[in-house]
Amino acid sequence: MGAGNTIGERFVAMSFGESHGRCIGMVVDGCPAGLPLSEQDIQGQLDLRKPGQSQVTTQRKEEDKVEILSGVFNGFTTGAPVCMIIWNKDADSRSYEAIKNTPRPGHADYPALVKYGGFADYRGSGRFSGRLTATLVMAGALAQKLLKHTLGIDTVAYTLEIGGIRAGSITRENIASRYSNDVRCPDPAAAEKMKEAILQAKREGDSLGGIVECVSTGLPVGLGEPIFSSLESDLSKALFSIPAVKAVEFGSGFEGSKKRGSENNDTYYLDSTGKVVTRTNNAGGILGGLSNGMPIVMRVAFKPAASIAKKQETLDISTGREADLVVPGRHDPCVVPRAPPIVECVMSMVLADHAIRSGLIPPVLKKGA
Amino acid sequence: MGAGNTIGERFVAMSFGESHGRCIGMVVDGCPAGLPLSEQDIQGQLDLRKPGQSQVTTQRKEEDKVEILSGVFNGFTTGAPVCMIIWNKDADSRSYEAIKNTPRPGHADYPALVKYGGFADYRGSGRFSGRLTATLVMAGALAQKLLKHTLGIDTVAYTLEIGGIRAGSITRENIASRYSNDVRCPDPAAAEKMKEAILQAKREGDSLGGIVECVSTGLPVGLGEPIFSSLESDLSKALFSIPAVKAVEFGSGFEGSKKRGSENNDTYYLDSTGKVVTRTNNAGGILGGLSNGMPIVMRVAFKPAASIAKKQETLDISTGREADLVVPGRHDPCVVPRAPPIVECVMSMVLADHAIRSGLIPPVLKKGA
Amino acid sequence: MGAGNTIGERFVAMSFGESHGRCIGMVVDGCPAGLPLSEQDIQGQLDLRKPGQSQVTTQRKEEDKVEILSGVFNGFTTGAPVCMIIWNKDADSRSYEAIKNTPRPGHADYPALVKYGGFADYRGSGRFSGRLTATLVMAGALAQKLLKHTLGIDTVAYTLEIGGIRAGSITRENIASRYSNDVRCPDPAAAEKMKEAILQAKREGDSLGGIVECVSTGLPVGLGEPIFSSLESDLSKALFSIPAVKAVEFGSGFEGSKKRGSENNDTYYLDSTGKVVTRTNNAGGILGGLSNGMPIVMRVAFKPAASIAKKQETLDISTGREADLVVPGRHDPCVVPRAPPIVECVMSMVLADHAIRSGLIPPVLKKGA
Amino acid sequence: MGAGNTIGERFVAMSFGESHGRCIGMVVDGCPAGLPLSEQDIQGQLDLRKPGQSQVTTQRKEEDKVEILSGVFNGFTTGAPVCMIIWNKDADSRSYEAIKNTPRPGHADYPALVKYGGFADYRGSGRFSGRLTATLVMAGALAQKLLKHTLGIDTVAYTLEIGGIRAGSITRENIASRYSNDVRCPDPAAAEKMKEAILQAKREGDSLGGIVECVSTGLPVGLGEPIFSSLESDLSKALFSIPAVKAVEFGSGFEGSKKRGSENNDTYYLDSTGKVVTRTNNAGGILGGLSNGMPIVMRVAFKPAASIAKKQETLDISTGREADLVVPGRHDPCVVPRAPPIVECVMSMVLADHAIRSGLIPPVLKKGA
Repeated sequence: MGAGNTIGERFVAMSFGESHGRCIGMVVDGCPAGLPLSEQDIQGQLDLRKPGQSQVTTQRKEEDKVEILSGVFNGFTTGAPVCMIIWNKDADSRSYEAIKNTPRPGHADYPALVKYGGFADYRGSGRFSGRLTATLVMAGALAQKLLKHTLGIDTVAYTLEIGGIRAGSITRENIASRYSNDVRCPDPAAAEKMKEAILQAKREGDSLGGIVECVSTGLPVGLGEPIFSSLESDLSKALFSIPAVKAVEFGSGFEGSKKRGSENNDTYYLDSTGKVVTRTNNAGGILGGLSNGMPIVMRVAFKPAASIAKKQETLDISTGREADLVVPGRHDPCVVPRAPPIVECVMSMVLADHAIRSGLIPPVLKKGA
Repeated sequence: MGAGNTIGERFVAMSFGESHGRCIGMVVDGCPAGLPLSEQDIQGQLDLRKPGQSQVTTQRKEEDKVEILSGVFNGFTTGAPVCMIIWNKDADSRSYEAIKNTPRPGHADYPALVKYGGFADYRGSGRFSGRLTATLVMAGALAQKLLKHTLGIDTVAYTLEIGGIRAGSITRENIASRYSNDVRCPDPAAAEKMKEAILQAKREGDSLGGIVECVSTGLPVGLGEPIFSSLESDLSKALFSIPAVKAVEFGSGFEGSKKRGSENNDTYYLDSTGKVVTRTNNAGGILGGLSNGMPIVMRVAFKPAASIAKKQETLDISTGREADLVVPGRHDPCVVPRAPPIVECVMSMVLADHAIRSGLIPPVLKKGA
Repeated sequence: MGAGNTIGERFVAMSFGESHGRCIGMVVDGCPAGLPLSEQDIQGQLDLRKPGQSQVTTQRKEEDKVEILSGVFNGFTTGAPVCMIIWNKDADSRSYEAIKNTPRPGHADYPALVKYGGFADYRGSGRFSGRLTATLVMAGALAQKLLKHTLGIDTVAYTLEIGGIRAGSITRENIASRYSNDVRCPDPAAAEKMKEAILQAKREGDSLGGIVECVSTGLPVGLGEPIFSSLESDLSKALFSIPAVKAVEFGSGFEGSKKRGSENNDTYYLDSTGKVVTRTNNAGGILGGLSNGMPIVMRVAFKPAASIAKKQETLDISTGREADLVVPGRHDPCVVPRAPPIVECVMSMVLADHAIRSGLIPPVLKKGA
Repeated sequence: MGAGNTIGERFVAMSFGESHGRCIGMVVDGCPAGLPLSEQDIQGQLDLRKPGQSQVTTQRKEEDKVEILSGVFNGFTTGAPVCMIIWNKDADSRSYEAIKNTPRPGHADYPALVKYGGFADYRGSGRFSGRLTATLVMAGALAQKLLKHTLGIDTVAYTLEIGGIRAGSITRENIASRYSNDVRCPDPAAAEKMKEAILQAKREGDSLGGIVECVSTGLPVGLGEPIFSSLESDLSKALFSIPAVKAVEFGSGFEGSKKRGSENNDTYYLDSTGKVVTRTNNAGGILGGLSNGMPIVMRVAFKPAASIAKKQETLDISTGREADLVVPGRHDPCVVPRAPPIVECVMSMVLADHAIRSGLIPPVLKKGA
C-alpha cells in the first residue's frame, strides 16, 4: 500500500524521514498493549548500529538518540501507535550538490532521479541512504523486546564473511561475544583478518562486501502463512529492504541445492525433553513456509558499498557526456560490521508480525506477566 | 491479509483449492480492462509445467486444463476479477492415509499438522503440494501476457544447475530453445548430464535439487517502491512462495559479496541508441530496489525434492515412537525441470503489479492497442 | 487492494463472477480451521435471498444452489480458502443488448460504461447486478455460523419501512417470525400495508424503497479498532457495498443529532447478572468505534429500485440524442423484502473479521467445542 | 492492518499521538511527487478547526501549529512520506485522574478501559479525543490541495442543522461565506438561531448535535471501485472515523427511501457544453458506487457531545457502585461548528486515494503544471 514505506499486517511499521532532512522516524501500529518500554530498549540496538565506533566504519559522528513520541504511558505500551524519531544533526549536504548530475555506479542515484522526476531529496542519498536502516532498528528493537518478553524468542546475527574471508567455528559461546570485535564476527581470528582486509580496501579507496548469518531460537511450531505469507516470503521481503542486500538463503540454501534428498532431508526424533526435533537443520527451521520448531537459520549477502573514493567512470545526466566521478564525503568501506543489529531487528519485526497473526501474542499483555 | 493466500496490491491474486480436492484455482483482481485473453493464453504455460512429459518428471498424468470462469467478455478482460480453475481428476489419495502420522522429513507435514490442529486436508499434501504452483502459473501467465502486450516486457527462466551440474555457455539463442530438452537447460551438453544425473538419482530412490535463472528484459527505469516494496523485496517474497525454494539472489548475489566495490559497481554509458546503460550488470537490473533499465537477472535455488522412495527414519506422531518411512506414490525425482515456467510466471505477477502501481499500465487499455 | 473486490483483514472475502456470466462466487481466506461446515449452512441464507418467492419480488427463477469447492475436509473447515460458487443458469441477456447505449437513470450503466471503456460485461448489469449480493451472502453466512458457533453472537435484520410505511411495535417475538410474511417485516399489520404498496407500485410500473434494521446481540465489549477501523467505519463500508444502499445510521442516528447530550447519553448500571449495561441504547452498542456490550443497532436505507417498467427519458450515448427508455426484463419492484438476509450476512462478515483481529476467535477451533 | 490507525490504499495516512501526550501527528505515504507544499497549506484548515475561536466552542486555547518533518524538499513533495506533527502544549490532565474509574455516559471511556486492559492513556481521552481530528485535517488538507492542483476538485462542507434547527436556503453564494459566522452555516438567519441554541444548552450544562452537509464538485466520471471500494463505502468508512458521527447519507438518503423510482431516478441530458448531466441529483453524484460526474452530496450526523457539565449517573468501575458524575474541564457544547473543515478534509483524503487508484493523478506531477 501507499508508496512502499509500510511493512507488516498486524505489527505494522511505517518509515519516514530523509538522511539529511529534519529527522528520521518510524511509527509502529499494532504493538500489543502492556509491554514495558522505554527509550533505552530501543537505544541499545541503535548504538550497535551507529557509525563512528571503530576504524572499519565511516568516521561520521551520528548520535542517533531516539525519542518515543507516542504510544507509551506510565512505562507500558498502550496499544496506540508508537512513533519513534531521531533528529538529524549537522548534516553536511554540500558534497551531494556536486554529484547530483553524475550518478554513482552501484547506487540508487540514477533510477531514483528518473522515478521521482527530480523532486526527490538527494542530500545524503535521501530515502536511499543506509541511514534509514535506523528506522528499521527502531521498529525491530521494539519487536525483539516483544518477542523476548512474551515468547522467549531470541534472534542473533553476526558477520559470517567479509571480502571472501569466512569465519571458522561458530559456537553458542563465541556468538555471545560477537560484539567484542570491530567486525562483529564470532570467530576472533577471522575477525582480525576481516578487519585488516577492510582497512586495506579503505586505503585503496575501495570497499568490501560480506555475509551476515542470523539465528532465531525459541520459536513455536507453525508460524507462517502459506502460500504467499510463508516465513521465507515475509522474512526475505523485509531483508531485501536493507540497502546493499542482494541475496538471501535459508538453511542449506544454495549449497543444499547441490545435495540429494536423502542428505538434505532432516530426520525427526524426540529429544530428551520429549520435543520433536530434527537431527540436522538443512531446512533452516522452516518447512512449507512454516516454522518447524528448530532454529531459523538465514544468511544474507551484502554487496560491497557503492560509494568508493576511487575514481570511477559515469555519465553526466544533464549533458549525456561521460564523466569521471570521485565520490566525496565519508562513507563506510564495508557496511557489514554495522549490519548485524539491523538484521536482528528486521527478522524480529517479521516474526513479531507472524506471532500476532497466529494468535500467539494477544492484543493486551497480562499485567505482571 | 487473511491467511496468506493473497499476493499483490494492484494486480492481486488469491489462490484456492487443494491437491486432491475438487479443484485448484486463482482469482485475479485488478487486471486492467481491454486485454485480449483466452484460455489458450494460460494453457501454454500450464502445459510446460505439467508432469508426465518426460522421464525426469513424475509419471502422474494431470491434464490440467484451465477454465476461465469470470472477468472475460467478448474476448477481452473486463476489469472484473478473473477466476481461473482446474478441476482435479482421478486423484489417488490412499497412500496419504498410510503416512498421515509419520511426517516426511523435509516436507511440511509436521508443522502443518501442528498448525492446523489436524483439520488440514493432507491428501496429496493439500495446500502444500507442488500442484498448487499451477495456481501461480494461472495468475502469472495472465501477468506475462499483460506485460508483453502493454510494455513489451519479456521474462524467461531456465535451468542453470541440477545436482551440482552447471550449464556452461548461456546465450540469447540457446535460451530461446530452452524447452527443447527434458531439463529445460539452454546448454544441451549440460542438459544431457543433468538428465542422466536425475535418472541415476531416481533409480536410487533419491532426488536432486538445482538452480533456475530468470531474466526480464524491456523494463522501464524506476519500477519498485522503496523501502519495503523494493523490487527485490516483492520478487523474493513471491519466489519463496514456490515450494522447495530456499535461496534467491539478484545479479552477482553471493559471489558479488566477495568482490570489491570497484569491481562490482556497474559503470554507466550511453549505448548507440542514446539509452543509459551499464557496462556490466552485477546489480541484476536493480539499484536501491528500483529497476535501472538493465535486464533483471535472478537466480533461485530449489532443494532436492523431499518425497523420496528410499527408506527414511521419522517419528510416528500418534505414538511418539521412531518409525521407518517409505513414501508411497509417484513423485518428481527433481522439481527443477518443471520450475522454469513457474518462475517466469511468478516474476511476471510481481512486475505486473509494480507496473500498475507505477501508472505504467492504465486501468483500461486502449482499444486496438 | 486490487480493484475493490476484496474486503476484510483477517476474514477476507474476494467476490467474482457476473450476473449473466458462467457463475458467481466468493473465496474466503482466513476462516479458522475446525468449524463444522456444509453447503446447507450457506444455502439457508441464500434461499431467503433468492427471487421468485412471492408476488413482491421479481418472478425470475434462480435456483442459486451453492457448491463449496475448497477449504472443507471431513465436514470441517481446514484453514485454507473456502471457495463457494453458484453456476448461472438460463440467463436471458437479449434485453440488455437493446439498452446498452441508453443508460438507465439511477443505475450504474453510465458511469460503468465510461469507467471500463466499453469492456465491461453489461449483460444483466454484470458486476453491478443485485445478483452479486449472493456472493455477500456466501461469505456472510459462513461468518454468521462462525460467530454463533464460537461466541454466541446473533445478528437479525428485518424490514422496518417500505414506501414510507413504517413498522409499529418491534419485539423479540415478532422479530423471530420476521420471515413469515412476504416483506419480512416483524409487524404483521404494517407488513400487509407494505405488500399492498409494493403491488400498487408494480402495477404502475414503478418501484419503492425502504429501510432495513439490524440488531446484533451477544457481543463482547471492545470490538473495533479506532481510529479508521472503528466498528461503524467497517460496518458502513461493507453495508454500502450492497447495491441501492444510500444511508446508514447507528443507534439514534439522525434523530439523535436533534437531541441534547443529557437525553442521548446512555447511563450505565449493573444488571442483575452483574454485567455493565446502559439504560438506553442511543449509541447503538458502539462508543468511540468500540462495542460496549449492548446490542448493535443499525438502520440502512435502500433507494427505490432503478429499473422500472415506466417510460423514462435518457440519452443515447452513441448518438448524444435524447431517447425514451422502457427497461425490459423482470425486475424487483422493491428490493427491501430480499435485503434482510443480505444485511445480516454483511454485518456478520465484518463482526467475524473484528472478532478474529481482537483474538477472540483463534486460528484453530478446539475439537468438540 | 495494524490496529486501525491507517487508512487508504495509494494515498495512505497513519495517525499517531495522544490528546495529552507529547504530540499528535500524521504520516502520509503515497502523495505524488511534485506538489508545491508548505506548512501554510495545512495550517489554514487547522485554524478553521481549532477551538477557542468563539463562544460556541470550548474556551481551551490550542495553538495547533503544524510542522512538516519529512517528504518536502525545495517547496515540493518528493514522493516520500510526509510526516506532519503538532506539539501538545500545557495540557491539564488532572481532571481526568478524578474520573478515570467513572466512565462518562456516551463516551468511549468504558469500552476503551476494557479493551486496553487499563494500559490506554486516558488523559484528555487519549486516542479517543476529538483532538485527534487534527490529524485527519493534516492528511486531508494535503489531499485537498492535491485534488485542487491536479483535477480542479473542490470540496466544501457546512453546518446544515444544529439542535434540530435547519438551514433554509443554501446557495453557491452563501456557501462561499459559510465561515463568516460562528456556527459555519451558510444561512445567516438559521446561524443566529443555532448559536443561540448552543449558548442556551451551554448555560444549562448540556450539549447539542447536528448535521453537516458536504459537496464535492469537479469530479470525473468513474471514480470508485465496486464492490467493496465503492465511493460510498470508502467515504463512509472515513467519515465514521470522526468521533460523534452516527449516520451518513448520500444524495436523497433516508428521504429517498420513501420515494418512488420514477421520482428518485435522475434523468440524463446533455448540458450546453455537451456534458452528460442529470436533471436532479438524488443519487448524490454516485451510482453503483461510481462517481457519475454530478456533485457528490453527502450528509453526516453528529450526536450531541457526550461530555456535559450537568450531573449524570454512572458506575464506579473499580467498586461496581453507582456514582454521580460531573465531568470537569472545558468541553465543546456542540462539536458541529468545528466539524466542517474536518469533513472536507476526510472527504478529500478518500477522493485523493481513489483518484490515484484510477490513474487520474500520476506518481509524479509535471513540473510547472
